[in-house]
Amino acid sequence: MIKMTIFYPNDEGKKFDMDYYVNSHIPMVIEKLDGAFKGGSVDQGLAGGAPDSPATYVAMGHMLFDSVEELQSAFGPHTEAIMADIPNYTDIQPIIQISEVKKSV
Amino acid sequence: MIKMTIFYPNDEGKKFDMDYYVNSHIPMVIEKLDGAFKGGSVDQGLAGGAPDSPATYVAMGHMLFDSVEELQSAFGPHTEAIMADIPNYTDIQPIIQISEVKKSV
Repeated sequence: MIKMTIFYPNDEGKKFDMDYYVNSHIPMVIEKLDGAFKGGSVDQGLAGGAPDSPATYVAMGHMLFDSVEELQSAFGPHTEAIMADIPNYTDIQPIIQISEVKKSV
Repeated sequence: MIKMTIFYPNDEGKKFDMDYYVNSHIPMVIEKLDGAFKGGSVDQGLAGGAPDSPATYVAMGHMLFDSVEELQSAFGPHTEAIMADIPNYTDIQPIIQISEVKKSV
């Protein structure tokens, strides 16, 4: 499986509306991706690894696809609409990564 | 659910032995965590979001727990043994984050 992860850095003074992200943005994205979306999750950062340290990311979104090609062709026609919705829940500049899931337990 | 994510930054000139991580380190950690481990995955970074950009992380490990308390009490007695195994697969300084899974599809 191929995983797209969107990281939202925990930058000071920035906003992130988790309710909008989970209940409005993600369902819209899943609908646009049609059948190419194979599952995923949304994480809210709580803490870092060291005692009393902050989380590196205030939020992360993970989306699974069968292949990089399916991911790209599913997003292609909708990238603009999806990007246009981001200011509705955050002013953070997201970081994107494509990964291969090597093991799932 | 509570998720612990371990990020391995894609630093130049560093090594990461994915075979050892997936087939030796992770099984050892799961065994030590006993029943507290509720599932997880290992991702290998392929690319960034922009064309021809590198992945931010060469690898990520995600582990699920029922609560922060269960995570902490499960890791507590084994932290030293787990940390001591890291040089066997990487010289990257990992970043750790604890998150709450807000949505899982």
